[in-house]
Amino acid sequence: MKLYSYFRSSASYRVRIALNLKGLPYEYAAVHLLRGGGEQLAPDYRRVCPDGIVPSLVDGDAVLQQSLAIIEYLEETHPNPPLLPSTPVDRAYVRAIALQIACEIHPLNNLRVLKYLKHQLSVADEAKDAWYQHWVKNGFGVLESTLAGDPRTGKFVYGDTPTMADLALVPQVFNAQRFNVDMQPYPTIQRIYDEAMRHDAFVRAAPAAQPDAE
Amino acid sequence: MKLYSYFRSSASYRVRIALNLKGLPYEYAAVHLLRGGGEQLAPDYRRVCPDGIVPSLVDGDAVLQQSLAIIEYLEETHPNPPLLPSTPVDRAYVRAIALQIACEIHPLNNLRVLKYLKHQLSVADEAKDAWYQHWVKNGFGVLESTLAGDPRTGKFVYGDTPTMADLALVPQVFNAQRFNVDMQPYPTIQRIYDEAMRHDAFVRAAPAAQPDAE
Repeated sequence: MKLYSYFRSSASYRVRIALNLKGLPYEYAAVHLLRGGGEQLAPDYRRVCPDGIVPSLVDGDAVLQQSLAIIEYLEETHPNPPLLPSTPVDRAYVRAIALQIACEIHPLNNLRVLKYLKHQLSVADEAKDAWYQHWVKNGFGVLESTLAGDPRTGKFVYGDTPTMADLALVPQVFNAQRFNVDMQPYPTIQRIYDEAMRHDAFVRAAPAAQPDAE
Repeated sequence: MKLYSYFRSSASYRVRIALNLKGLPYEYAAVHLLRGGGEQLAPDYRRVCPDGIVPSLVDGDAVLQQSLAIIEYLEETHPNPPLLPSTPVDRAYVRAIALQIACEIHPLNNLRVLKYLKHQLSVADEAKDAWYQHWVKNGFGVLESTLAGDPRTGKFVYGDTPTMADLALVPQVFNAQRFNVDMQPYPTIQRIYDEAMRHDAFVRAAPAAQPDAE
C-alpha cells in the first residue's frame, strides 16, 4: 500500500495510526501542503486525488479517499485488531465521536479554511485565532462531558483499546496544542491523548516521526 | 424510533431519507434551529444531544448522534435495502463521496458557521454569500468530474439504486439551490438529484414535506 500524506495533516495522521495498529506496512509519499503553492493542488497529485486533499491510500488498483472511509476499508479488509466495537449501538457511539471531530471541528480549522479567512475575508490574525479556538473549545467541551460521563470510557474513548474515535481524537489534540489551546478544561481528553502517546502505533504515526517532518 | 429533526437541516434530511428507504416508521420531534435563539441549544434538547445539533435518533434505550453514524447503524440493524455496495473498495468509494459532502462542504456552510461569520467576524452579506458559494463550487466541481468519469455512476451515484452517497448529495443540492448556486456546471449531480426527486422515499423526506416546514 502507498499512503499520500502530509506530516501535519490530521486526516493523514488518522490513517497512519490505523495502518500501524493493523500492522500494515506502507510506502510513504509526501505531499507538501505549503510548498510551491501546495503540492496537493498540482496536476501530479490531482491525478491521484481530484479533490487535492490528503490523505489518499493506494491499495493495488484501488485509490481511496477520505480518511474515515479509508479506515472503514482497512477495518473491513483487515479486521484485526478491531477499530470498532461489536454491537451496532456501540459502533454508532464510536463513529459519532469520530464524526463529531471530523465534521464539527476539523473542517473549520484546516489550512485551506484558515487561508480563506486571512486572504479572502481579510480576517486579522487575532480574530482568526479566536475562530480556531471557538470551534475546538465548542467541540472539546461537548466531548469532554460525554467522555467524563459515559461508562464506556476507559483508557481510551471506548474501553481500554484504541478505536476509530481515538484515531480522530489524537490528531485533533495534537493540532489544538500546536495552536496553543488550553487543555486544562479537558482532563479526560488529555488523559486519553497521554495514554495513546505511550503506544508505539500512535508514536510512529505522529507528525514529528514522518519522513517529511520539518 | 423517534427522530429529532429540523425540516431544513441537511443532516436531518439525510437520516429521514434512510428511514424512508428502509421502510422504518418514526415519530418526528421538531427542533427549531432559529426560534428562541435556537431550540437545539435549550436544556431540554441538550439532555438528548449535548452537542446541541440535529439530528438525534432514539431507538429503544439508545440515543444516537451524527447523521452518518446513524445511517451506518440503520444499515447494520436493518440491512435491506442496502445503502452500501457489497465490496470493500466500492463501499469505500460510496462512503468517501458521502464524507466529501459531509466533511468538505456542509460543515463550512451550516447555520452556526454563517452566523459566526456575520456576528463575530462582521462579514458583509455579499462576502458571506461568496464564502458559501466557494465551498459548494469547490466540492461540487470535484464531485461532478468524479461522477461524470466513473463507470459506477448510474441513475444514482453508485448504480441505479440509492446509497449513502445519494443521502448526502440530495440535501446538499437542495441547500445549494436555496442559496442560488448555479447548477448548470454540474449536470450529473443535477440529473441524480432529479432522479431522486421521482422517488417516494426522497420526496417524503424533503424539507417541504415535514411537519415543521414553514
